[in-house]
Order: sequence, then structure tokens, then C-alpha cells
Amino acid sequence: MSEFLPVKGTRDFPSEYAILRERVISILKECFQIFGYDPIITPIVENFELYKGKSGEEIEKKLIWRFKLPYSDREYALRPELTPSLVRFYSRFRPKLPFKRYEIGRVYRYDDPQKGRYREFWQADFDVIGGKSPEADAEVLNLVIFALKRLGFKNFVLRVNSRILLREIFENFFGIEKEKVLKVYREIDKLDKLGKQKVLENLAGILEKEKAEKIVRLFDYNFDEIKEKFDEEKIGKEIRNLEDIFDLVEDKDKIRFDLSLVRGLDYYTGFVFEAWLEGFNRSVAGGGRYDNLIELFTGKKTLCVGGCLGIAPLIDVGLEKGIFNLNRKTYAEIAVVYVREEFLKDAFSLANLLRENNFKVYLDLGKNNFQEQMMRAREKGIEYAIIVGEKEKKERKYTLQNLKTKERAMYSLEEILEMLEEK
Amino acid sequence: MSEFLPVKGTRDFPSEYAILRERVISILKECFQIFGYDPIITPIVENFELYKGKSGEEIEKKLIWRFKLPYSDREYALRPELTPSLVRFYSRFRPKLPFKRYEIGRVYRYDDPQKGRYREFWQADFDVIGGKSPEADAEVLNLVIFALKRLGFKNFVLRVNSRILLREIFENFFGIEKEKVLKVYREIDKLDKLGKQKVLENLAGILEKEKAEKIVRLFDYNFDEIKEKFDEEKIGKEIRNLEDIFDLVEDKDKIRFDLSLVRGLDYYTGFVFEAWLEGFNRSVAGGGRYDNLIELFTGKKTLCVGGCLGIAPLIDVGLEKGIFNLNRKTYAEIAVVYVREEFLKDAFSLANLLRENNFKVYLDLGKNNFQEQMMRAREKGIEYAIIVGEKEKKERKYTLQNLKTKERAMYSLEEILEMLEEK
Repeated sequence: MSEFLPVKGTRDFPSEYAILRERVISILKECFQIFGYDPIITPIVENFELYKGKSGEEIEKKLIWRFKLPYSDREYALRPELTPSLVRFYSRFRPKLPFKRYEIGRVYRYDDPQKGRYREFWQADFDVIGGKSPEADAEVLNLVIFALKRLGFKNFVLRVNSRILLREIFENFFGIEKEKVLKVYREIDKLDKLGKQKVLENLAGILEKEKAEKIVRLFDYNFDEIKEKFDEEKIGKEIRNLEDIFDLVEDKDKIRFDLSLVRGLDYYTGFVFEAWLEGFNRSVAGGGRYDNLIELFTGKKTLCVGGCLGIAPLIDVGLEKGIFNLNRKTYAEIAVVYVREEFLKDAFSLANLLRENNFKVYLDLGKNNFQEQMMRAREKGIEYAIIVGEKEKKERKYTLQNLKTKERAMYSLEEILEMLEEK
Repeated sequence: MSEFLPVKGTRDFPSEYAILRERVISILKECFQIFGYDPIITPIVENFELYKGKSGEEIEKKLIWRFKLPYSDREYALRPELTPSLVRFYSRFRPKLPFKRYEIGRVYRYDDPQKGRYREFWQADFDVIGGKSPEADAEVLNLVIFALKRLGFKNFVLRVNSRILLREIFENFFGIEKEKVLKVYREIDKLDKLGKQKVLENLAGILEKEKAEKIVRLFDYNFDEIKEKFDEEKIGKEIRNLEDIFDLVEDKDKIRFDLSLVRGLDYYTGFVFEAWLEGFNRSVAGGGRYDNLIELFTGKKTLCVGGCLGIAPLIDVGLEKGIFNLNRKTYAEIAVVYVREEFLKDAFSLANLLRENNFKVYLDLGKNNFQEQMMRAREKGIEYAIIVGEKEKKERKYTLQNLKTKERAMYSLEEILEMLEEK
């Protein structure tokens, strides 16, 4: 059967999965709109050079779907994330600032497929270009919390940090050279995956062992302890900025300062965050501020902050925790069922009449027999069947059956329309 | 500026375009659901071999985005249409028949970009697997007519034909060999593009000139004339089937028999159709029956019929004809505007409170001044502004301004919520 499988790391979604995904995506869209973000659409295929020297080594060297076609020498890429296309879009159209946009779509990474990690997956991205800290950063956190709650999640936490704070501690108190900071970030980012001991070893390859140990120990401190431990003057400005961000977050119990959080993309410049659901060992959302990225395109420094929710982890965990289910297998509300093939033509007209009245109507076009039609309608979870047979045709009345309660009675078409409209 | 352009043949959609596209797609989804079709989702990246020897020479040799990655020897393709993925999906999961599904998504062809023709574009596809003729064929026509009307189109026609009828005429009355029929179809398919004279020349390269001329002359006949002209016995069965299809179509004035219609894909076996809008020289929808395609995968003959609407031509023509417009630039209903920066924090809280009540609220996070905030809100077409300033803060009342009528007055928060909810 393997010949019918999709490409490794990509997936087919049968209707019950597709219906759930549509619901999740429509909730996320509504949340973005409630926060005043509007959609844009960008291509999935971009020129490979859009990603060169921006997102980071790993994505660029190992993870990008990059290729040439037989017809051209140009190197294309399937977008590994949505931010670079946004930055290109902004540079092209220069909309007035602040510009708040969302985009929900497929992205591609040539990662090793494993549980919850795919080569084709969906991201729900939102960003403010031209939004200042602390307000825009706080809005990003508020929006993620709002969206997770709207989806039905209760037990989650947003880990929050600032790369400015971390860099200032590294430079002012540990004497780490500017050139090494990005390398140190990349190692710290592996903490969740590799654990403290392994990261310590890796850091000791970049820094003196003693410094590496001190850094790792720092990550046990909470916000107040960090504030206390370091000289206020040197890191005070960013500490105050973080306090202002926290102050503007509505659900303060949902955020937790975490000095070890750096995020995997090279372009983050300050505030960063990740959302973690209880009992799931990967983040379901993340983002941060990247004030230097647009400058690489336009030459002009432009404030940017945003976040991104992963549709696959949200659905995977939601299903596991019973927040979502796959019970809805169809959008159809009514099955028009014919007793024998000779009544198919009448059933066909009746179905069309109901459709003109906006009902979602399934009609079997494979000429299955009556029992099979009824069984199929029940299996799909359709609520009502309207039966067309001899008696119905003669009396110009139809049997309406509630497929859940099994109640049935005969009504005129007008009565049926009236009853269904009231539901 | 060309460095900021998307890949040739692909497009960026600013918010007003994205909002219109979302509306069109949501109408189409609703139409599919009303007809009892449910969504599935399949990958954009497929193995290239899925397309080998199925859709036709031109797609396979010249139009497919096919490629290898630096990491693997496998040849991938970006799907050029949605039907092959559906057939693979069906072969994998074998859902019970009839199986009615829709999928709306991006497809890719390495075509020469020109007005209305793109390398990345969107198709809205729906199919019945296991649906018999004439009922399933008629439902496909009814659904396309229903959808075009729901979108707001009035002047259109569906050209309908049957490849069985055409083949039977070719074989029985013109003595054309079976092996040549597909070649003849390919030339006939170019009629709209090349015109009669050129197609006649091309046909004369395959057939005796006299036969070629007879074929082209056939296309002037209407349904009744074809019926009369040819011996009923030999083509009678398919003639009757077409009559049955026409009989089941609700809007008979929207369909027109056209013996010259063959469609460009090799896999069609019988009924084919195309939808044409008045004053637009390309079809906006098309489809047909392909009863042999699944057999190539599963070894078992399985009835299939479906249709496909092109989102780009629908939107392009709709805009040209004034059926659609780009007036809606934002989903936001309310702009919360602060008089001076010191009131931003109050505006921030008010915005969040309105959002908790499901209003779509834009808040300027770039700290533009009051005049600029008001101007931006008006430019975007936001209906209401709620102004936060000194007086508002002191009296715990806010100024609500209708940005269209310019009416303004001060209200308590409760009054505002009540008023807005009634709108």
C-alpha cells in the first residue's frame, strides 16, 4: 500500500481531520481579527536567496526545501517560515506603520519526521511592523493567551525573556565577546532537547568552563533574583522594559520569566517568548522582536514583533487532552434518502429545493439501497433523514426522521422547511 | 525594487485582496457543503511519479514544477491539479462509496505568466467518487451553476459535451482509428486558442483532409441536429444519457450542448463541461467524468466525476464586472484612539476589554499622534472610533465617533457595549 502514501513527512487529512483543522484555523483567524490584525497572502515558493543569512545556519544549510527546475537556472525554496515573506512584502509595498498582519499557511522543512514534527506543516503567524515596546510586545503575549484560551486550553504558560537582557549580562558581567553571543544562544536553545549537562559541555567548547557553568546556573534564578543579583544600572533599562511588558499582560499567571529562553532563529533582537502546554514537551507557539531584519532589505531600521502558533502541535495536544475530538465527520445536516431507485429523481428535486433554502444536504448518487443509505447517514452523524418513497410521493408529504432519537413522522414540505429553520 | 518582487508568476495579496479572496473561498466552501461535499486536505508536494502518464503530455513534459532536493534522490513535484492527489487518497483510505469531497488550495504550473494565468494559483475542486451518470453528472452542473449564482454572476453558460458521443461519431461514422482519437481531442481542445483554420490544418496532419473538414463542420450543429444527422442506434445510448443529464439540471437556460468541447486532460472518459462568463475569453470552471483513472491505481474500475472552479479568473472577472470590489481593507470594526501618549495605557486596557466582548479592535501601537490615528482609521474604513483622553479618563466616559457620519457623543462603557452589540 506504500505506493499510495503521501511524500514522507507530509499528510493526508480525511474529512473529520479537515473539519477540525478548519475549525481551529477559523478560531485563530477570528482571534487575530479581534486584535485588529488583517490577512495578507504570500507565495509558498520564494527565491532561495530570501533566506540566505537571515533565519540561521541550521535552517539554511540543512532544513530548506531548495531546488531548481528543469526549465530554469533559478534556485527556488519552499518557505520554511512566514516572516521572510512578510519582510519582503513590507519592503515592496511599504504600508503605513504600524502594520498589523496575519497569515496562516503551509511551511516546509526537511526535518527528520517524528511524532508531531512534519516536513509540510501549518503556521498561524501574526506580526506588528512599527510597533513599539512594551505595548506591542505585550499585545503579542495577550493575543497568544487569548487564542489559546479561545481554543479551549487552560493549563499553559508563556515563557518570556529578552535577548537584550541576556546579552547585557553576558557582555557586562561575564566579559563574553560580542562575536560569541550568537554561538552561545544557539547552544542555550538546545537546553530542552539536550539537557543541562550536554549544553554545559557544548558551551565549554566556546567559553572558559567556569563561565559556562555560571551561565547555566543563572537559569535557575527568577526575575527578582536576577534583578537583585546584577547591578541595576547596567541592565536596568531592559529590566524596566520587561516589567512594563509584564504589567500590560492581562493574565499575569500565564507568563513566567525564563532567562534560558533564546529561541532558535538568529534574527531576534530583544523580547522573545514561547508557549508551553502542560504535559507536552514542545512549544506550541513562539515569537519575539526582530528590529534589525527589515533593515537588511530596506536599509532602514524598522521595529518588528510577532508570534506564530503551530497548528499541528495545537491539534495533536488538543486531541490527546480531549479538548478537541474527531466526532464531526460531515457538514451535512440532512440526508435525502430514496426508498427505491425509481424515487431517485424525486429525491434529486427535493435535495435541490432544500439546498436553495441553504440546508446542507447529502444525496446518495451511487444508488445504494435504502438500508445502506440510512446506515451511511447515521455513520456520518447526519442529524435528519428525509425519506422519499411511494407513500410520500402520493401524499406529497415526506417522512422526516431524527437519526439520533429515531423519532419519525410525515410532514408537508412547508412544515419540514419551517421546522428545520427553527433548529 | 525588483529584488522585493515575488517569484515570477506568483503573487502577493495585500489585505483588501486577501479579504476578498477569503470571502470568495468561504462562499465556495459553503456551496460545496450545501451539496453535501466534505473537505479533505492533501499535500502540495507529491512524488513526481503520481503525475506520470495520467494528466497528459503537456502538463507532464512542460508544465510540472518537478525537482530534487540536495538531500535526496527522490523526484518531487508541486501538484499541478488536485485530482491525482484525490485518487491517491481514495486508493489509500478506500472510503465508502459514494464519496463526495472538496478541496480548495494552491496548485502550480510552469506556464508562461500572462494576464490571468499564474504559476501559483488556487483551485476549488469537488468530486463524487462512485456517483453514477446521469445524476452525479447533473449534480456537478447544478453545483457549478449554484456557486456562480451565489458569487453574484448572472451572465454565464456551461458548455456541455460527452467524449463518448464524440468518440462514437468518430469511430462509427468517420472510421477514425481508436489510437488517433486522443490526438484528435488534443487538437480540438485548441479551438478557443487557435481558431478553426489553424485547428483544421493541425487535424489534416493526423487525418485525411476531408475528414478533418467534416469534423470541424460538425461543431456548428446543435444537439437536435446531431441527433438527427447520425443513426440513432449507434450513438443513441449516449444521446439519451446526455438528455437525462440536461433533464436533471435546474437552470436549463444556463447549459449549452457543444460537440467541440473536449477539455485538456487525457483522463476524461465521458461527460465534460466548461463554464464561461460573458465577455471573458477563458473558462472559469470545468470538469467531467474520468471513470478509468482510479483503475490505474487500484486495478478496479471506479466511477468518478467532478468539477473545478478557478479562484483567480473568478476574482479577476468579478472585479472587472463590478460584482466584487476591494473596498473592504480591514476586518476591524472599532479603532481605539488615544489623545496623547500618556493615555495609551488606558486605551490598551479599553481595547482588551472590547476584545473580550468579541469586537474587532484596532489599536495603534506605533504611537502616532491623535490626528494620524484618526486619519488611519478613516482610511482603513473602520466604522467607529472610541477616543481616550483627559476628559474621558476623568469622567470615566468615552467619546464614540461614527467615522462615516462623523456623529460623536460621550457614553459610559456599558452604554457603548450595548450600542455596539445592537449594530
